Amino acid sequence: MKRQLLMTPGPTPVPKAIMDKMAEPIIHHRTPEYREIFKSVCADLKTVFKTRNDCCVLTSSGTGAMEASVVNMLSPGDKAIAVRGGKFGERYYDICKAYGVDVIPVDIKWGTAPDPKEIKKILDDNPGIKAVYTELCETSTATVYDIKALGNVIKDYSAIFVVDAISGLAADDLQTDTWNVDIAVSGSQKALMLPPGLSFLSVSEKAWGMAKNSRLPKYYYDLNKYRKSLDQGDTPFTPAITLTIGLKRALEAIKKKGIDNILKECKGMAKQLRNEAEKLGFEIFSKSPSNAVTALKVPAGVDGALLVKAIKTRGITVAGGQAELKGKIIRVSHMGAVTENDITKTVGVLKEALKELNTK
Amino acid sequence: MKRQLLMTPGPTPVPKAIMDKMAEPIIHHRTPEYREIFKSVCADLKTVFKTRNDCCVLTSSGTGAMEASVVNMLSPGDKAIAVRGGKFGERYYDICKAYGVDVIPVDIKWGTAPDPKEIKKILDDNPGIKAVYTELCETSTATVYDIKALGNVIKDYSAIFVVDAISGLAADDLQTDTWNVDIAVSGSQKALMLPPGLSFLSVSEKAWGMAKNSRLPKYYYDLNKYRKSLDQGDTPFTPAITLTIGLKRALEAIKKKGIDNILKECKGMAKQLRNEAEKLGFEIFSKSPSNAVTALKVPAGVDGALLVKAIKTRGITVAGGQAELKGKIIRVSHMGAVTENDITKTVGVLKEALKELNTK
Repeated sequence: MKRQLLMTPGPTPVPKAIMDKMAEPIIHHRTPEYREIFKSVCADLKTVFKTRNDCCVLTSSGTGAMEASVVNMLSPGDKAIAVRGGKFGERYYDICKAYGVDVIPVDIKWGTAPDPKEIKKILDDNPGIKAVYTELCETSTATVYDIKALGNVIKDYSAIFVVDAISGLAADDLQTDTWNVDIAVSGSQKALMLPPGLSFLSVSEKAWGMAKNSRLPKYYYDLNKYRKSLDQGDTPFTPAITLTIGLKRALEAIKKKGIDNILKECKGMAKQLRNEAEKLGFEIFSKSPSNAVTALKVPAGVDGALLVKAIKTRGITVAGGQAELKGKIIRVSHMGAVTENDITKTVGVLKEALKELNTK
Repeated sequence: MKRQLLMTPGPTPVPKAIMDKMAEPIIHHRTPEYREIFKSVCADLKTVFKTRNDCCVLTSSGTGAMEASVVNMLSPGDKAIAVRGGKFGERYYDICKAYGVDVIPVDIKWGTAPDPKEIKKILDDNPGIKAVYTELCETSTATVYDIKALGNVIKDYSAIFVVDAISGLAADDLQTDTWNVDIAVSGSQKALMLPPGLSFLSVSEKAWGMAKNSRLPKYYYDLNKYRKSLDQGDTPFTPAITLTIGLKRALEAIKKKGIDNILKECKGMAKQLRNEAEKLGFEIFSKSPSNAVTALKVPAGVDGALLVKAIKTRGITVAGGQAELKGKIIRVSHMGAVTENDITKTVGVLKEALKELNTK
């Protein structure tokens, strides 16, 4: 099998300079040297999240941070809303269920974005809702949600607004503070150009206030512990040292280029991919396509699994569909270290692969 | 500051070959290539744990696996025992408390090991105890517990025997199956010679049986999900890919040398360090010293913090004491990639540092 160009929506390619930085001799985490690195990471995350709120760093996959955003805020029997427009919306619903939260699912057609008016109606019809859980980019359908409009609705209620930006952050715009997002969640292996293993949360004062009354049990994910040790540049438990060192390097690169320039680049690459793919006869799956990842409908008569394989044989890894979309879409990332040139290559390979399958 | 030789009980030095392996271009985890790596890791972990039980790999620090060993097994109000002989025994107690477990603390003098007879008495006096939580090596006091004797007592009760072997595994002998250990927990950054970020659990059939009736809430740490995906070489959530790739390399090295040879080497280095340190006038803190790490009492009249600093200035990082032992001990590791030569160097530096402080 050829060495693969990763065009998947996580993990994404990790620049060699970041890999090499992480491969330097390991240092201890309870040292001034590490604490300085960690403090710089926490400060730079704020720039990427566009927030003044404290950012916590967890050693876990993104799901761990999603769980933290539930167990730190709610109590058993609390009411919450989870938008289910794909696999990751379902995950928020499932986490709430696992913890005995009285969660109202908002089921929307996969590939569409939630209607803020519908959320408003549910908030009005169900007084006392504590939290609204949704995605920035629903990775399974490559759909971006209108967080600004949703935040504009939710801000007038006592509920906190929690956004899973695991795949969206630094690809689709997220203006955490301006858009009234209380908790934004992300992970390392997407637009932040790192291997998986770290997850992040930015937490607003409204959310910290709610956390005070939370009675759901937690220990490893107890965010108050993380917040308390932030000033010292510490984490309550041994952090993933090498990944944090890589994160510092990645965030410096992001800062250097400027977060808004990066968002613009992702938008450009997303447009490039969609235009070229449409020329090849692909339809775009999502009604609200993300700048982080694009889902292309597998053309009628083509086997989706074989298409992914034919692409892989040519040196490019794309993702297939998950759950109900298995075999029906392929997903191509355009975030992180991916370049226009990678998109061009991918389009070339898509063309060849399609041709191969159509002539079989 | 000189480049540091890490003689701390986690993180320990990571061999360059492992670091370099992790720095290769990242691969996707839902691929045959990664699944093969993960399956090999799960198989090799059994050799190190000396078990036939399934081993689960989590993306978290060791504390995450400790929490998993509580939340997967117990229900609110269940009775359990936690041996508190140091900071990590306290952690097990705290995790139980956080989840509403009716946990009986067994407080022993720091630096001593629990008496199996005392555990037996508590099990007899409190019918229905579901779990006994203890350490293999209590890292904060550098004390090894007699797991064989404890297992021999607990096996006759319905309680499961859970051993935190985070720092002990592959340094102090742990015969999981022979010694009747139901759950053994470990982490990547100790004798397994990796950066922090992965944790492990081996789980017996008795424990999986108990898990069926557990009503404590869990999602990210739901071990049944991990077990179900083991056969496919999958994890339920995105794994720490690079660390897992490093783990494969580390486990291969361990297998090649043989786990019992490694245990013998650790024992030899522990003895070497203790003998030489005693010649320098240090007393050994623990009444049951571990082969993973040694705690040396800071001599009367010497400032513990200054001693750690004087050692660091000379290029070696050791750990100080935690909590009630702060300033009173220093801890030196002899596990993982540490060599006899490193111990010799450390003793030389200890001598110099002590001399410097005594003549001040």
